[in-house]
Formats: sequence, structure tokens, C-alpha cells
Amino acid sequence: MKLPVSPLAPSHFPEIPAIEGVRISGIAAGLKKTGDRDVFLADLSPGTTIAGTLTRSRCPSEPVLWCREGLKRGSARAILVNAGNANAFTGKAGTDAVKESVQAVAEALSCKTEDVFVASTGVIGEPLAPTAIADSVGKAAMSLAPGPWEDAANAIRTTDTFAKGATATCTLAGRTVTIGGIAKGSGMIAPDMATMLSFIFTDAAIAHEALSPIVRSAVDKTFNCITVDSDTSTSDTVLVCATGAAGNKRFARGSRSLKPFADALENVMRDLAQQIVRDGEGARKFITIGVSGATSRQSARRIGLSVANSPLVKTAIAGEDANWGRIVMAVGKAGEPADRDRLAITIGGVAVARQGRAVDGYDEAPIAHHMKGDRIDIEIDIGLGKGRAEIWTCDLTDGYIAINADYRS
Amino acid sequence: MKLPVSPLAPSHFPEIPAIEGVRISGIAAGLKKTGDRDVFLADLSPGTTIAGTLTRSRCPSEPVLWCREGLKRGSARAILVNAGNANAFTGKAGTDAVKESVQAVAEALSCKTEDVFVASTGVIGEPLAPTAIADSVGKAAMSLAPGPWEDAANAIRTTDTFAKGATATCTLAGRTVTIGGIAKGSGMIAPDMATMLSFIFTDAAIAHEALSPIVRSAVDKTFNCITVDSDTSTSDTVLVCATGAAGNKRFARGSRSLKPFADALENVMRDLAQQIVRDGEGARKFITIGVSGATSRQSARRIGLSVANSPLVKTAIAGEDANWGRIVMAVGKAGEPADRDRLAITIGGVAVARQGRAVDGYDEAPIAHHMKGDRIDIEIDIGLGKGRAEIWTCDLTDGYIAINADYRS
Repeated sequence: MKLPVSPLAPSHFPEIPAIEGVRISGIAAGLKKTGDRDVFLADLSPGTTIAGTLTRSRCPSEPVLWCREGLKRGSARAILVNAGNANAFTGKAGTDAVKESVQAVAEALSCKTEDVFVASTGVIGEPLAPTAIADSVGKAAMSLAPGPWEDAANAIRTTDTFAKGATATCTLAGRTVTIGGIAKGSGMIAPDMATMLSFIFTDAAIAHEALSPIVRSAVDKTFNCITVDSDTSTSDTVLVCATGAAGNKRFARGSRSLKPFADALENVMRDLAQQIVRDGEGARKFITIGVSGATSRQSARRIGLSVANSPLVKTAIAGEDANWGRIVMAVGKAGEPADRDRLAITIGGVAVARQGRAVDGYDEAPIAHHMKGDRIDIEIDIGLGKGRAEIWTCDLTDGYIAINADYRS
Repeated sequence: MKLPVSPLAPSHFPEIPAIEGVRISGIAAGLKKTGDRDVFLADLSPGTTIAGTLTRSRCPSEPVLWCREGLKRGSARAILVNAGNANAFTGKAGTDAVKESVQAVAEALSCKTEDVFVASTGVIGEPLAPTAIADSVGKAAMSLAPGPWEDAANAIRTTDTFAKGATATCTLAGRTVTIGGIAKGSGMIAPDMATMLSFIFTDAAIAHEALSPIVRSAVDKTFNCITVDSDTSTSDTVLVCATGAAGNKRFARGSRSLKPFADALENVMRDLAQQIVRDGEGARKFITIGVSGATSRQSARRIGLSVANSPLVKTAIAGEDANWGRIVMAVGKAGEPADRDRLAITIGGVAVARQGRAVDGYDEAPIAHHMKGDRIDIEIDIGLGKGRAEIWTCDLTDGYIAINADYRS
């Protein structure tokens, strides 16, 4: 099934500069039946540190189990990713496939297997030959170069209708450092750690212990604030690699001077996360749900997700109907502190509900106009505290059904 | 919008006998724009006891707040229900509407207002005149009769495509007692207490204190085990009324002799709950998800609901695709104890996955045949304990999107 490009896609893939210490390739190895690119390899210079987040699923894929160990050590020399087969629920063959793959990469790039990270995305439970992925490593290694970010982003796509990349620079102790990253995700997207694949690289020099909390915090405010369909994948992985080639001095954990880097990383992740929502299966509208006045930030986030995951809210928006009664319902079912009579809801900047009822005689015309656009803004004030969060999601259309009712066939 | 009758509907409305001490009516009062029946009134003989469960939503409707008080007392003389307007998030007008309604019923049937129970279903947040519902009471009272169960069931419908009723008899201390009930529900259906409206009547004599735990337990195993779209309503209400007209002696709380009644009530509730799923918006397949081997019954229930609420599982079934990888995903994201390598999944009686991978060379033919039918059976063995639950749901089709993208228009 060849899907049309999402109407919410950015106009073009961004210009991501080469990042010193990083060489990448995205090649076609035959894992996708279409013959499209399906293997991404990154070669990282010695001394590269790594931090990341992985799915919390109780049925994780083999690559996730492998990365869990690697992230404890925090050093990386390579990342190998394939699309077309998730290598999840594949038993011993899956374990063997990971072993063969990291072995092949270690040989091709002359590094230790424990410094090789892997990820797989595609159908779950499909048996695969132990060398199916490993066999692609030679070809991928031959194509390594500093620049082919779009090829790399294409190689990790599954039902994605466009390649996703983002970049930023910042100044760190007088040196300009660059961040560049790619991501994939379109369905099976819900926040619980990562919920998709993203690989981000920087030439900054940051120790593993300093990088980890920055990554966790940025993921929490970006990838963990998106949802397409409330389904959390077995394979979700975010890896951030810092090669240190920019030559800045390494910062200790918690150093305030890392703030510009943390902000830039958060911007890259927010950009990638929002691109995933913009490629939500069947999406025609990009929805921002701001929740304020909750008793805490986590409470605001949970309320926002309850609204964002509600099929009735998502279908109403697909129908361009400002049915705020369904928003009240979704706030009510979130299980978080809320008081019906303090709730206030704004759609497209127009107050529609306040103090337990509709706002008297609000003007429906500007709201109807807003609902016809492709960016929908909903603000919910819980009226109880200072907790605030912003959640991004998309509408639920017949396109989602069509895509998911025949993915395997 | 006139919807076609669900393909999963029973062939006819059941024969529900008159229940001594209960007179009912279902009339058209103009609250539905279609002119269809929209008000249900039940007149209950003096001495009737009542027990029930209500939504746990933090934004409940006015009628739910009213019933919450009434259920503490446990006596009932009347129930008034309207469709067409949920009287939820309607502010002071909504409070006034409840007051006017119970006052009108109390006058018409010569009883105390506190013995009148009310429920409303329809659009949320639509302002309504304080007497809009009360004005219908006179006409409803004139039509009261022992028999019109189907009229009553029709009067509480919203997007339901068929009227829902069920009945059972049992022997209680040598006397035959009868149970008869109606229900409505089609979308905004997810278990957290009741999640729809159901009114059940019996001529058995059972004290409020004995009835309450029986009702709670039966709801937990029936209405709380269904889901259509994971959305919990602001108005969910189950009320069970016992008139005592059968003349059996009243049982004390916890009496073992009540077992036949508890079983019969559970059967009526299961029948009604499954009819709601069979009328799930856009449903084409009735899905039973059995979960065994969980660490507890509640854990099994949560895992089953995680599978039943997964849009990816539901769309795969709509596409007649036995994509068990998505079941693995949904078990993994449930947040309940599970071990990938002990999990076993059976579809239509055929084992497809076991010990962390696909069953070698299982025969796809009988599964493909099973997936084409309109009853889908999925069995999941978690392999950790003895907890078991059964969940009922339906598939997610373009019909759900069509219905909910233009409900208000």
C-alpha cells in the first residue's frame, strides 16, 4: 500500500549539516518488500557518549533489551537500524539476529560489540533469519558519509509518509555545537517513554552522566507529549549521541552552563515529535491541547492525554465540529483532580465553556472558521492549581481505519 | 442521521413479562428532533428498594449528582429518564431541570421527591429550559402500563440502532421471581462503573443493604467488562429496583440463599452489556477477549481492556487480519505484570504464539476463516498466576468515524 503524503507534512526535509564525528548511510537491503531504503547505519568516532530512553512495554523487542544494557555503560561507536521487521516476539531467532547484527557491525567498523546499538521497526512476530539484518552491514558500511540525512530518515520509515529530520545549533562555552536528528513514527504512537524511533547526534562533548538527565527531561516534554492512537510500541527508542568533536570541555552533571544545549536539544525533539503527529495515520488536523490550572504538571499532562486519546474528541475534530461537551467528558474520565464548576474551555481563542456551563451567547462563527483549518487549538483551564502541559495530537479519520485494517495484507 | 440497524443485533426484542409492582411508559415528548420516543417513566409500588452504580467521571451530569444522594437512602417510587439532552454541564438551568422534573413526578405519582430517580442522555452542554423534561411527565404518567418494555427501551435510545432488553427468572425461597431490564449505549462506552444507562426491575423482596453488594458485583463482571471506544460518559447509570411484590421473605445481607438471584441478575446484565457492544458504533464484529494466567482478576481485566481498547487491534480485526503482534503490543503496554516469554495467544481456538514467538507452522486457514465471521474469540494466557477475566468489545470501522464526525450536525 503506497500512502499519499500527509497534508500536514512540512514542505521539505530540513538542511542538516554534517556533524563532526558522525558518518551515516541509509540503504536498501531488501527487508522492505517495496525495495525502498530499509537500513540505517551510523558510525561514531571514538569517545562518543550516548543516552536515551526505551519503551516501558512488558513485551519489548530484542533490540530494546540489547540497548537497555548498552545505555548503562553510556559509550557508543555505532547504531544499526532496520525497517520492515520489528524483531519483536521472535524468540531465539530474534536474539540471534541481534547477536549477528552487532557482530557484523563491530567487524565492519572495528569496534566492540557492546558499543553497537540496534533498533528494528516493522511487523511484530514475523520470524526472520538470524543473518537477515547482519547481511546488510557490509553494504551500509560502504555507503557511510557525513551528509545523507534524508536517506537515513527514509531508511527508518514504515507507514510514515515523509522523512523526518530536525537540526539546531547553540553555543557551549564559547564553541558552536550542532545537533542533528531523524525520527520515524506514524501509528502505534503514545507516550510512555519514547513511543517511536529517533536518533539524534551532536558534536558537543558531554559526559554520559550529564547527558542522561538532559535527554530524559527533553523526552518528557516532547516525545512523551504526543499521541496518535494511544498505542505504545514494543520498540520505542530515542538515542542521543555526543561525539565531542566540537572540542568544548566536558561538563559535569547538573552544570548550569549546559542550559543552551538542553534548550536546543528540546527544540530538536519537539520539532521531530510534532512531525510524527503531523504524519499521524490518516491525520488531517494538527491539534494542540494546552492544559493549565491542574494540580501538577503530571496531572495536566494526564488530563491532556485523556482528551487527546479520546476517540470521540478526535472524531468530532475530524468532522470540524467544536463539540466541547466531549472535551468535558474526557476531562472527567481522566481520573485526575477536576471540578466541573471551575472548568473553562477555549477553542481557537474563543471561550466556549466556563463555570460548569456554556458561555452565554458565544459567537460560533469564528470557532466554525477555526475548525475548518488544519491547526486546532484547545485550551483547558482546570482552575485548581498551577500545573501546565501541552499535548500534541491529530484527528481520527477514516484514513486511520483504512491504513490499519490492511497493514499486513 | 438515521443509522442502519447493527448487523450484530439480536433478531428481535425479547418477551419481557410484566413485573408486579412496576408500571412503565415510553413516550415521545419532543426532546428528540426526530419525533421518536424520548421519555421513559417507571412507577414503582411502595416499599421498592433500589441499588445502583454511577459514573466515576469528575464532570458528572446533574441527574447523576441527584441519584448519588438517592442511592444512599435506598428506596424508590419512580424513575424518569429522557434522551435527547444529557443535562450535563448545563449549570444552574440543569440543576433546576432536575428539581422541576422530580417535583412533577412526585405530584403525578403522589410520592416524595427524594424517592424519584432521574437520568438523561444525549448531547452534553446544550442549555435546556428548566421545565423541558418536567413538561413531559403528565403525558408519560397517563401511558403507564405493566407491559410496554420495547417502548421504554426505545425511549432511552440515542445513537443506538436497536432497543435493548433482557429477562430472567429464578426461584428464591420457593417463590419464582422475575427480573426484567432495559439498557442503552452505543458510543462513549468504557467501563468505569456503569458507562451507559440500564434500568432493571424485579418483583423479589430484597433489602437495600442486601441488594447493593449484589448489584456492584454483577456490574463489575458485566457492564464493567465492555468497551466500545474507551470513553467514559458523564451520565453512566445502572439502577436495579426490587418491588417485593413476589412476596418472598426479605433476605439479610450476604445470605447464601440470594445466590440464585445474584446469578440471574448477572445473566440479565451480561445479556444487556453484550447487546451494547453488539450495537457499538460502526461495529461489524463481536469480540470476546479471555485473559487467564494473570496475577489477579483485576490484572486480567486491565490487560483485557488494554487489548480491547487498542485502536490497532480493533482496526486489524475490522480488516479480518489475525495480527497477533498487535495483541502482544497491547499486553505489553497495559502496565500489568506480564512476561513476554510466558505469553500464549489463541485466536479462534488455534494457538498462534507461545513462549515469546510464533507457533511453528500454525495453520492460517482456520484462523482466516474465523476472522471472516462476526464472532471473534481471542484467548490470552499470561502464564503467571490464576487471575482470569473476560472482556467484550467490537471492531473499529469507518462506520465509527462517520457516526461521530457528524453527531451534532
